[in-house]
Amino acid sequence: MRALVFDGTLLRQESNYADPILGPDEALIRPTRMGVCSTDLEICRGYMGYGGVLGHEFVGVVERVSDSRRKALEGQRVVGTINCVCGTCDMCRAGLPEHCRNRSVMGISGRDGCFSDAFTLPVRNLIAVPKGIDDDHAVFVEPLAAACQIARQLKIEGRPYITILGDGRLGLLCAQVTSRLNATVRCVGKHPEKLELCAKWGIKHRLFGDVGLRQDQDIVVDCTGSTSGFEAAMRMVRPRGTIVMKTTVAQSHDAIDLSPLVVHEINVIGSRCGPFPDALDALASEQVDVLSLISRRMKLADGVEAIKTAGRGDTLKVLLEP
Amino acid sequence: MRALVFDGTLLRQESNYADPILGPDEALIRPTRMGVCSTDLEICRGYMGYGGVLGHEFVGVVERVSDSRRKALEGQRVVGTINCVCGTCDMCRAGLPEHCRNRSVMGISGRDGCFSDAFTLPVRNLIAVPKGIDDDHAVFVEPLAAACQIARQLKIEGRPYITILGDGRLGLLCAQVTSRLNATVRCVGKHPEKLELCAKWGIKHRLFGDVGLRQDQDIVVDCTGSTSGFEAAMRMVRPRGTIVMKTTVAQSHDAIDLSPLVVHEINVIGSRCGPFPDALDALASEQVDVLSLISRRMKLADGVEAIKTAGRGDTLKVLLEP
Repeated sequence: MRALVFDGTLLRQESNYADPILGPDEALIRPTRMGVCSTDLEICRGYMGYGGVLGHEFVGVVERVSDSRRKALEGQRVVGTINCVCGTCDMCRAGLPEHCRNRSVMGISGRDGCFSDAFTLPVRNLIAVPKGIDDDHAVFVEPLAAACQIARQLKIEGRPYITILGDGRLGLLCAQVTSRLNATVRCVGKHPEKLELCAKWGIKHRLFGDVGLRQDQDIVVDCTGSTSGFEAAMRMVRPRGTIVMKTTVAQSHDAIDLSPLVVHEINVIGSRCGPFPDALDALASEQVDVLSLISRRMKLADGVEAIKTAGRGDTLKVLLEP
Repeated sequence: MRALVFDGTLLRQESNYADPILGPDEALIRPTRMGVCSTDLEICRGYMGYGGVLGHEFVGVVERVSDSRRKALEGQRVVGTINCVCGTCDMCRAGLPEHCRNRSVMGISGRDGCFSDAFTLPVRNLIAVPKGIDDDHAVFVEPLAAACQIARQLKIEGRPYITILGDGRLGLLCAQVTSRLNATVRCVGKHPEKLELCAKWGIKHRLFGDVGLRQDQDIVVDCTGSTSGFEAAMRMVRPRGTIVMKTTVAQSHDAIDLSPLVVHEINVIGSRCGPFPDALDALASEQVDVLSLISRRMKLADGVEAIKTAGRGDTLKVLLEP
């Protein structure tokens, strides 16, 4: 089958990649839309030391399941959580399966991703997509869930000032989700054309260069994926305020002075994957506009070019189709 | 008067340093004991860009106050909080005076410290020392308060596993304070002779080299003051666990990979100064053994040598006397 593969050094389009083998309690899925995420770009720079088929954002159709009792799933349109877990380790038993000690993560760690003609996932990872949510929306469930995770982790008290730092794919989703909280939200970025979307959504927005770093924000959500972004976050958040770290980058060789965290007693909350049901609800009730984030539609066969395109500063979401 | 001065480049003993000038609502204090802190050592490496008289740990006697209504303070034995605040900024009004926007900090930022024959502090910073607490104990109030701050910031639920990382001055105070919480506490360090104190106190202790970095601690308190220490903390704490950052260092030029914070959704809590009343209570009720931490007693006149001594790996607290 066709697959977009990062081999640890090079990204390449394969036309004869081995077909996936269906394991116990798994489903074989044919993706109908796939989304390119910044994590895919970071993996191509060495993040996680991953090698294999890229991709973890998709909506697709179940072609086959290994357990005959789950036959009803075949033919269904699904999205899927990306952490494949053991169900028996201390983290799984503690109700934190996304932190399973023995997990593999689709397209990120120990398991082929979705940028291919077909791939497998455990059946328990799959969620059927309601009819009212079309493929162009459903493909955003995974990153939107990651944005929804912020609302789960933060304790919102007294209408805080929240800055979303970064106007990329994830930043603009976070801006939309947090703007539904009882908070004063602004998005700060470096791309006027991206920030224009905030204007459309009625969300305050400022160019980074126009904003004072005045330690006056109660909460800063760092969606920049850069060391300098985290440093800026430390200068924007008020003493005893909270920084939500949302993006991961390939190992940075930049030195960073973390002493502001101690001096100003800042709280840092790492935040990764989120709740799919919250994201599906937000899409079903049209609380979030994802279509405006689509910059390009490309073919899986042009995957190498799609990754390049997604890395350009003026691009938001690149969608792949079979 | 005599004073131990860091001029931004060099540390030196001055014998004719200008006498302090008593401002409004201030007290002139003659210290009877002073403690050398790792922050003093970091300042001599450039931390905070400070220049002036060093020192912020003391117990002393009030010689004179500027406000005649506070005459009763004269002759009293006192300790003092180190942040000198405006009382009117947003942080002060929010009940966070230690984060005052306009603060100076004794011996650390914008205000001479206590390693001298005499110094001034605002009267409102002073707390009288009860008779039952002698000078050798009272001089530990400031660092002990910093250790007590952890108990204020953490929410202890379900008897967590806590690792105190670092067996220095602050680490051993933190180990004693947290061992009073409903938690399973161990201290991990690199100095067998320092960890021996934990044995005396009935606190679990392990050599760093003997400990697996297994992401199994609910809470790690980083008292190492090093980038490698923080990296170890990220590998010791469980997913969704908490790292308390307790020590500050001069700007590090070490690169650090912060992505584990995101991947494992770790919570980092910066922690600085703490509540003096809690520390005085702990001393009065003999919950904490500070005398065992005293490695050396030296004279103020030997201050340069005292700072050097405090920087040696085998030294715990160095006390200065006039």
